[in-house]
This record gives sequence, structure tokens and C-alpha cells, in this order.
Amino acid sequence: MGDIKRVAVLGSTGSIGRQTLEVISALPHRFSVIGLAAGKNTDLLAEQISQFQPSFIYSQDKPSPTGARYEFLSLEEMASHPEVDIVVMATSGKWGLKSTLAAVKAGKQVALANKESLVMAGEIITQEAKLSGAQLRPVDSEHSAIWQCLEGEKQKAACIILTASGGPFRGYSPAQLEKVTPEQALKHPSWQMGKKVTIDSATLMNKGLEVIEAGWLFDMPFDNIRILVHPQSIIHSMVEFADGSVKAQLGQPDMRLPIQYALTYPERLENPHLPRLDWDNIKELNFEPPDFETFPCLKLAIEAGRKGGTYPAVLCAADETAVELFLSKRIKFTDISRLVGQALAEHKATTHPTLEEILAIDSQTREKVKKMVGDNR
Amino acid sequence: MGDIKRVAVLGSTGSIGRQTLEVISALPHRFSVIGLAAGKNTDLLAEQISQFQPSFIYSQDKPSPTGARYEFLSLEEMASHPEVDIVVMATSGKWGLKSTLAAVKAGKQVALANKESLVMAGEIITQEAKLSGAQLRPVDSEHSAIWQCLEGEKQKAACIILTASGGPFRGYSPAQLEKVTPEQALKHPSWQMGKKVTIDSATLMNKGLEVIEAGWLFDMPFDNIRILVHPQSIIHSMVEFADGSVKAQLGQPDMRLPIQYALTYPERLENPHLPRLDWDNIKELNFEPPDFETFPCLKLAIEAGRKGGTYPAVLCAADETAVELFLSKRIKFTDISRLVGQALAEHKATTHPTLEEILAIDSQTREKVKKMVGDNR
Repeated sequence: MGDIKRVAVLGSTGSIGRQTLEVISALPHRFSVIGLAAGKNTDLLAEQISQFQPSFIYSQDKPSPTGARYEFLSLEEMASHPEVDIVVMATSGKWGLKSTLAAVKAGKQVALANKESLVMAGEIITQEAKLSGAQLRPVDSEHSAIWQCLEGEKQKAACIILTASGGPFRGYSPAQLEKVTPEQALKHPSWQMGKKVTIDSATLMNKGLEVIEAGWLFDMPFDNIRILVHPQSIIHSMVEFADGSVKAQLGQPDMRLPIQYALTYPERLENPHLPRLDWDNIKELNFEPPDFETFPCLKLAIEAGRKGGTYPAVLCAADETAVELFLSKRIKFTDISRLVGQALAEHKATTHPTLEEILAIDSQTREKVKKMVGDNR
Repeated sequence: MGDIKRVAVLGSTGSIGRQTLEVISALPHRFSVIGLAAGKNTDLLAEQISQFQPSFIYSQDKPSPTGARYEFLSLEEMASHPEVDIVVMATSGKWGLKSTLAAVKAGKQVALANKESLVMAGEIITQEAKLSGAQLRPVDSEHSAIWQCLEGEKQKAACIILTASGGPFRGYSPAQLEKVTPEQALKHPSWQMGKKVTIDSATLMNKGLEVIEAGWLFDMPFDNIRILVHPQSIIHSMVEFADGSVKAQLGQPDMRLPIQYALTYPERLENPHLPRLDWDNIKELNFEPPDFETFPCLKLAIEAGRKGGTYPAVLCAADETAVELFLSKRIKFTDISRLVGQALAEHKATTHPTLEEILAIDSQTREKVKKMVGDNR
């Protein structure tokens, strides 16, 4: 009980990284920050270094001087360092892939917020985790919900019900969707998140990636993973068991709860900063089926997941590139699914790819999607 | 895995008893019926004897001859018989009390559908269970839900949220309630149950008894047990943990699911007869606070639970008597809470009562309530 777990936060200046540090600040008797890794937000990284005094630092750009003493490490060195107990993988996109694999090979407890790792290389990561005894702890609210519902159960789930807010454009027609701006897409109705995942939530690509991730995390066939739109985002997901009993996990839409559970598992700790559900103000919870026609990314993702091999890597790379193009206003919102669909259609798959093959496909796909847009102009 | 558990069903001709036998019939490779105990429905008992060929029988009246060979036992002998693995306590009212205690003292796995046992003698039963290692497995859908949500958790719940359908008279004014007939009260909107518990559901006394039962089963102070009206009866109850995370158990309102879980725990078994939730047809789940003013039984029960001692026994005895008087049309629906309130107000409590004291108070209260009605005529 009394020992303090040493946490490395990879992606500490992003949304999940910052919230992880908030949680750790509230539980100083249980966790210390041993490592911080960030990209280009060197000002915030310098602040975090001053506050948490980590032993290890990674930064794409050189952080401002803070007077603190620390050692520079690569992402993979930090993720696998013997003094690290828990690695929080909060980098976005494919950047987390190699360091996730390093943490997994080193047998760490990996709090995984980077969905792309499992989507692109789920087979490799889950196999390595089996070999090393590393524990993959989901940080996504949906996967955390499923994990919590499965805790203590003797058998696998019969079926997983992933809930989806439906995003800010739920109920929009295809014509309305065409005119959507990045500013509109960045306003999510219930969750505060980074830009990439917020756009992915608006296209429902995010839910599709979550289906693939759930498949790997819980060893669940795609036919047994169902999506249910639940606009209030209070039920974070559900599990149905062999006897028909269903368990759900509920909470305010606040990422600090799943982050904290991934850190404290199998315990739960009181944290006065975490919000609680207020049943005096919850009058109804609503549900509806997802609209696969208007939001084709959902279907594209599930198909890519079913096909497996390098298809999910193409999906991720094409989506990330298309989202960047949309955010810089070079393509329309509806072009995101069109470009992803085209990249998948033109792909010739490799089954059981190596990490190198996955990363090669990633780069090729990014180039290809950029070219598609060049061709269309 | 392979061994067959021998089940004694006490109260086999009632609603829970019949559904227990349905579940056992669907899982013949896992359970056999070793004992059947019934009251006066000797025709149905004879049918059950023919079908299940039990070794032990108890019956208030002599059952019709069936040609089957069995031994007559008292309820307590059956509940504690060494050949019995699981005792299903499905008798209603105080009849279950002594046999529940016998089963608990014998260290059995007790599937407890009889709420009065724990309400009247929770202190004695839980203490005896600790001594003998008997396991109390709730059969009520609400308590089964809480039990399922707690499974695998390392810590106690911070708070329990008992859901309530609100009964058939949810939203009625006190003036409307005065005119309610037994026929109307026996039509429950979501659950198929015996007469006593159906009337208790209409007065909300049932929910009050469940609060007391939950307090004993989960060692939970009354201040941490909350009631939430949820008319669809799909969320069967919820648990809030120290970190603010909430788990809920959901299912069709069908008692066979909690009955089966109490039999198969900690496993879950497929049973094609058990209904499953159909999310294509669940558009919303609604919630509202309970109406303590219009349904005073709820408040009376919680107060009796808080006071403890012999108060809960008075509550049960007065309620059972008043419900019988209402069903035989001798009193109005609203007289039920009035009579229970009067019995509690006039009671002088005994703290830490013995079983004999509890049973004496039970008899005295029944007489007293009958007299109250005689006086009022």
C-alpha cells in the first residue's frame, strides 16, 4: 500500500498528459513523476519540469532552462527504463507505436491512451505483452468502462457494447456535413480532448478505431462488438455476459477518472477533484443506432479491422493525414472519409506485418493521401 | 465444473420457487432438485415431485400421491441437511426466518429471496453467517445487481443506488391513492411477482425493505443508500465507488436472471430461456426522485431500519397484516401505511433482540394491527 509508483508520462503536454499530471498531483502519496516526454510545447514542458522534478526528459525541441537536473532519454529508453513502474502512453498518432512496444517488451504497466498503437500493431503488441507479462491498461473512457465491467468476472464477455456520443454532427444530413468547418468540428458536445481525436469523434472514425482497439484488448471478434449512440456520454460502455446480464460503467465525461483508474488499478482512490454523477440532474439517458451511411468512417474502420494485416495501418495514416488537411482547410469535412476510403481501396495488404512493414505502409499512405489531394486541386 | 449441485427449494410453488425450478430444468447438467417445500398448493407440489423426483419434501398440507419415494422433513431439517448444497429461500414473509437461520448455521450457500429474514433478523443472520462461513446470495434483482457490480472490486462501495420502478401508482395524488383497488395494485408495470411483494411494490414498502436488506448484505450505512425511481426497470441498481466511478447492472425485468446467477455464482451460464436486452428497442432510460410524501411506507421503513432493534420486525409484521387486510378489501390502500406507522409509533423497542423476541414481537404486532382495524370499524 505505502509504496510510491514512478510514472513516466509520454506526451505530457497534450490533453491526456496534462490531465495525468493533474491526477498525480492530487495523489502525491501514491505516485511520482519520473519521466516527462513532449513534442514542441517546450514552455509547458519547462513548467512541468519545475513542478514535478522528473529524472528523465525527452523533448523534440530543447526545453527552456529550469535549473532542474535531469537526464535526456529517447522515448523508447524512457518507456523501458528499469526505474519506471507505469508508462502513460499519451502521445497521439503513430508516435506512440515504437515506445509502446518498448514499454510492453520491458514488461511495464502501460496506461494506453494512444489508440493508434493497438490499431496499427495490435497483433504484435498483444503477443509481446503475453511474452513479457506487460499489462495493457486502457485509458480511453470506453475501454476503461469495459475493463471495469469485466473485473472479477470468471469468463469473457459474450458481447461488448461501445457507446458513442455521436459527435457534434449527430443527425446532420450529408449535405449539411459538406459545409462543416474545423471550428464547428472542434466543438465536441461532451468531451474535452485533443484536436485529432475531436475531429475523429466528429467523423465517428474515433469509434471505429475504438472497435479495433477493443477487439485486441478484450480478444473479442468484431461481430460481438456493437456500437450504441448515447448522446449524454454518461454510460461509457457496457458488457453483456453469457447469461444475458449486462454491466455498465457510468461517470461524468471526464478523462481524469479513467486515467486515475489506469494508475491505481486494482484499487480505487478518493480524489476530491474528480466529478461525481448528480442523479438529481440526470432525468434521462438516450440511445439510438449509429448512422453508418452519413458517417462512412465508422464502416471503413470496422472493415479495415476485419481485414486486418496492414489495412488498419493504412486507415490510421490516411485518417491522420486527412484530418491535418481538413484542419488546415485544404479539404472538406466529407473528404476525410473519401480519402480514407480511397487509400484503403487502393491498398494491397500484407498479412502478419512486422513493425517495419507497418511503419513503411504508414509513410507511403501519408504521401499517397497528400498526392490524392494534389491531384484533385 | 462437472459436479452437480443439489438444490433445496423452500417455497417451491410460489413465484420465485417456480422460476427457480424453470432455471434448474434448463441446466440439468449442473443442478438437481434434492428438496421441495411448499405451503398449501399441494396439486402443484405433486406435479413438481413427479417432475424433479426430490429426496426430501415438506408440505403444510399432505401432497397428493405421486408414486415417487421421498422423505418428509421439517423446513429447518431440509435447510440444514448435509446432502443439500444450495438452499433457495423463496418462502414469503416470516416463514423463511427460522429455516434461513438453520441454513446459515449449517454453512450453506443460501440464495435468499425472502427479504423478511434479513429485515427482521439481519444482525443475527449476518453474524451467524460470519461464524459458519455461509454465503448469502441475494436473489432480489436489486441486490443481485449490487452484488454483481461489487464482484472483483477490492474495496467496499462508497454508495449504493437502489433503483425503483415507482410501482403502478407513480405520479398518483394522495386522493387518487385512496381509491385504489387490490385489482389495480396487483398490476405491476414491469415485474411478475407474488401478491404480497406486488402490493409492497405499489406502496413502495418493498423498496424500503430492500434498503434495510442492502444495509445488512453489503454492510452499508443508510446514509449511503440512495433510492432512484427508474420506471423501465432495466437498470436493476448501481454502485458508486471511492473514485466516483459508477457500475450498473442491467437486464430485462425477469427474475430468472438473478435466480440463475445466485445458483451459478461465480460462473455465468448460457440459458436460451433467459431474455436479453434489445438495444434496438431501448430508446431512453428515465430517472426521478422517489415521492416520500405520497408513499409514506418508504420513509417508515428507512426510519425503522435506522432505529434497528425490533423496529424492523414490527414493520414487517404490521405491513404483512395490513396487506392481507387490503387484499381482502377490509381496508383502503392508504390505510396500509397508516397502520404500519401506528404500529411503529406505539412500539417500545428491544435492542439486539434474540430470535425468540423477534418472533414474539411479530405475533404481537399482527394481533395489534388486526385490533386497530376492529377499533376503526
